[in-house]
Amino acid sequence: MMPEVYVIGTACTPFGKRPQTSFKALTREAYLAALADAGMADGRDIAMAWFGNCGMGTFGQRNIRGQVCLSPLVREGLFPERIPTMNVEGGCATASQALHGAWKDIASGDAQLSLAIGVEKTFVPDDPARTQEIFDGGIDQLDPGEWLAYYRDAGEVSGKPFQPDDKRGTIFMDTYAMQAAYHMKRYGTTQRQIAIGAAKNHHHGSLNPLAQYRFTMTADEVLADRPISYPLTRSMCAPIGDGAAAALVCSKDYLASLPRGVRERAVKIRASAMSGGKYRSLDEPGLSRIAADRAYKMAGISPSDIDIAEVHDATSFCEIYQVEMLRFCAEGQGGAYVASGATALGGDRPVNLSGGLVSKGHPVGATGLSMIHELVLQLRGEAGERQAKNARLALAENGGGVVGFDEAACAITILERLEPN
Amino acid sequence: MMPEVYVIGTACTPFGKRPQTSFKALTREAYLAALADAGMADGRDIAMAWFGNCGMGTFGQRNIRGQVCLSPLVREGLFPERIPTMNVEGGCATASQALHGAWKDIASGDAQLSLAIGVEKTFVPDDPARTQEIFDGGIDQLDPGEWLAYYRDAGEVSGKPFQPDDKRGTIFMDTYAMQAAYHMKRYGTTQRQIAIGAAKNHHHGSLNPLAQYRFTMTADEVLADRPISYPLTRSMCAPIGDGAAAALVCSKDYLASLPRGVRERAVKIRASAMSGGKYRSLDEPGLSRIAADRAYKMAGISPSDIDIAEVHDATSFCEIYQVEMLRFCAEGQGGAYVASGATALGGDRPVNLSGGLVSKGHPVGATGLSMIHELVLQLRGEAGERQAKNARLALAENGGGVVGFDEAACAITILERLEPN
Repeated sequence: MMPEVYVIGTACTPFGKRPQTSFKALTREAYLAALADAGMADGRDIAMAWFGNCGMGTFGQRNIRGQVCLSPLVREGLFPERIPTMNVEGGCATASQALHGAWKDIASGDAQLSLAIGVEKTFVPDDPARTQEIFDGGIDQLDPGEWLAYYRDAGEVSGKPFQPDDKRGTIFMDTYAMQAAYHMKRYGTTQRQIAIGAAKNHHHGSLNPLAQYRFTMTADEVLADRPISYPLTRSMCAPIGDGAAAALVCSKDYLASLPRGVRERAVKIRASAMSGGKYRSLDEPGLSRIAADRAYKMAGISPSDIDIAEVHDATSFCEIYQVEMLRFCAEGQGGAYVASGATALGGDRPVNLSGGLVSKGHPVGATGLSMIHELVLQLRGEAGERQAKNARLALAENGGGVVGFDEAACAITILERLEPN
Repeated sequence: MMPEVYVIGTACTPFGKRPQTSFKALTREAYLAALADAGMADGRDIAMAWFGNCGMGTFGQRNIRGQVCLSPLVREGLFPERIPTMNVEGGCATASQALHGAWKDIASGDAQLSLAIGVEKTFVPDDPARTQEIFDGGIDQLDPGEWLAYYRDAGEVSGKPFQPDDKRGTIFMDTYAMQAAYHMKRYGTTQRQIAIGAAKNHHHGSLNPLAQYRFTMTADEVLADRPISYPLTRSMCAPIGDGAAAALVCSKDYLASLPRGVRERAVKIRASAMSGGKYRSLDEPGLSRIAADRAYKMAGISPSDIDIAEVHDATSFCEIYQVEMLRFCAEGQGGAYVASGATALGGDRPVNLSGGLVSKGHPVGATGLSMIHELVLQLRGEAGERQAKNARLALAENGGGVVGFDEAACAITILERLEPN
C-alpha cells in the first residue's frame, strides 16, 4: 500500500492578461495564498518544491526558473532556505506533472510536506511572436516532417485538409479542429454540440471570480463568433493569458499534526497517473484513456464514481472527446452527453465548473494546478455560486503538447473529500 | 523504511564536440546502451522516464523535449508507448535531478522500472552566442541586480574585484575564480594545489575512453596554460561539449525477476538527496554540505565510509571546495588534501576517476548521470585502467546554476556495490 497523500492548501491567481505582473510576483501571489489556505504563516516545513513553467525562456530565464522565482521568498524567510526545487515542463500538462512530483515526495516517504506550483506568462503585448514561440514548443520542432505527413493524411480522412501554410497563429487550433472534424464525420457530432459545451463553460466561468472571461454566451452567440478553424469559433478556444496556481501536499502523519480547521478542509489524493502520446491511428483511444484507467485502478473506483471533473478543454471539442476517454459516456456520445446538460452546474456530473480553459483561461504551466484548486474548493463546499452538490470524488484531466492526434503528455488526478469524523 | 532501489543499467556516450549528432541520436545512443547494459533487448517494462536537458530551446525545441527525443524509439518499438515522460531542468545538476525522480518512482512503489536520461548539446560551431545563452540560464536573468551587488561585495572581500563588463564569455568562471580567491585568502590554498587537482583529473581522463580530453598534463603545464580568470587557467575549467548519459533503476522485486548476470551487476542506491542554494555569507558552508549530510543520514553511514566519489569540478577549485563540503577533509584543508594524492587513482579515496568535468567533459544536462555511470562501473569492477580497488560505497555530487557563492541546486547520490551471495 502506498502511503496516503493529502492536499492541505491550494491557490490560484486571477487568470488573464497581466503584462505588468512579473514571474516572481505571480509566484509569490500563488505561493502565499496556498500557505494561507493551509493556515500557515510561512512554509518552514516544506521539504521540496516542484516548479512548473513552459515559457520563461522566452522572457530570458531558463534552467533554474523555480529557484530564481522563489529566491525573494527565501530571502524574506517566507520560503525555507536550502530545500531543493525541481523544474518541470510538459507543455500544457506541466502543472499536473509538478503535482505528480510532489505527490511522489510524500508517497515515497522522502518528504512530509511538499509544494507544487505552476507559473506562466504567455501574453506579450508588444511581440506576439514570443507568445507563438511558447506554444510552438509543444510540438516536435526538430523534425516537423513526421507530423506534417501525419496531419496531411489525417486531414484527408477527416475531410478537413491540413493547410499549415494558411496558419496565422499556432497550428494547435488547426489540429484540434481536424480532430473535431474527424469526430463529426465518424460519430455525427455537431458544431452546435460543441457550442453548447462552450456556452456551458462560459456560464460556469461567469460565476468564477478568478476566470479570465466572466461573460456568458449562448450557443448561438458561440456559433456566430469569429471563426478560428472550422468547426471552432473563437469562444470555443482557450485564450492567451497569465497566472499561477499552487498546492501544498502532505503525509498522513503531518496532517495529523495540524489544527482541526486545516485537517477538516484537507482533500485526499486517491490517484495520480500519467501517460505519454504517440502517433496513433485516428480511431484508437487517446492517451488520457490510458492515464484515466490507471488512475481508476489506483483509486479502486470506477468512472461512474466520479462526481465532478475538470478536463482540458483547450477547445470545447476537447471536452467532448475527453468525457468519452474518461468513460463518462460511450465513445462517440460525447457531443450528445455534453449537449444533454449532464456536465453543467446542476447536472449529473458537472464538468469544468471553473469555466474550463475556454473561460477561466489557460496560462499553460499553471493550468493543471488551477484545476486542482477548483476541485478542492468544490469538494470542500467553498465554490460559492458555482458549487456542485454533494461531490465526494473529483477528477482532473490535463494534457500537454501534441503528437499527432494525441497530446504528448497527460496527467489524471483523483481527489476525495474527507468524511467528517 | 523506504523500499530499496537498484541501478541495473547505465550508459554514457563519448563526450565532446559532436555538432553532427542530433539530440535524438544522442538520446538513442545513451538509451540503447543503458538497455544493453541491463541485458534488455527493448524497454517494455519501463513505466516512466525522466528526461534532463537545459539547452534544447536554443536549438528550437522546448516544453516536450523528452517526448520529442524518445518518439522515434517509440515508433520502432524500442521504447514503450503510452508511458509518461517528465522533463526536468536544474542547470548543471539536471541529470541528477532526473535520477532523483526515477528513484522516487521506485521508492514510492509507483513503478517497478524507470529511466533517467540526460541529453545535451552545448557546442554550436557557427554561433557561440547560443552556447552562451544556454549557460546564461543558470543565473537570475530577471533581476541581475541582486547578484551583481553580491559579487561586487564578494569581490572586495576576496581581493578579486568583480568586473562583469570585462567578461568575454559567461560570468560563471569569474564567480568560481572569485570563490577560489576567497578560499586562497582565507585558508592559504594555492594555485598550485588547484593545478595538482587539475593534472590529477587529466590523468584520470586519459584513462577514460569516453572522456572529451584524453591528454595528460603536469601541474606546471596546467599553471602555464592560458589564463581564464585568475587563479583559473583553461585546463582547470570544464570544456564545452555534447553528450548523453542514462540509468535504469528498479525495485527489489523487479531485480529478483532478472537473470543472474544482471542481478550480480546491480548497484544499490543508498541515498538520493538534494538541496537548494541561497545568497549565503561567504564563510557559511555551501548547499552541497546540506545535501550530503541528508544523504549520509539517509544511508546511515558517515563520510569516512565513502570509498570513491565523483564531484562537480566545473573548475578544479570546485573539487577542493567540495571535498571539504562532503566532509572528506576539514574545512580549509581541501587544497592540501587534493595535493596529497589522496584523491588520485591509487590514493585513499579517489575522486573523479572519470576525469571529472575538466577532462571527461561537461554536457550540462547529461553530467550527473555520467557521474553515476562512472561510479557504477567502478563498483562493478568494470572501469579498466582507472579501476579503484575494493570500492564498496560511492558518492556523486552534482551542482547546477549559481546563486551567489552557492549553486542553485545540488544533488547527492550514494551507491553501494552488492555483496556476492
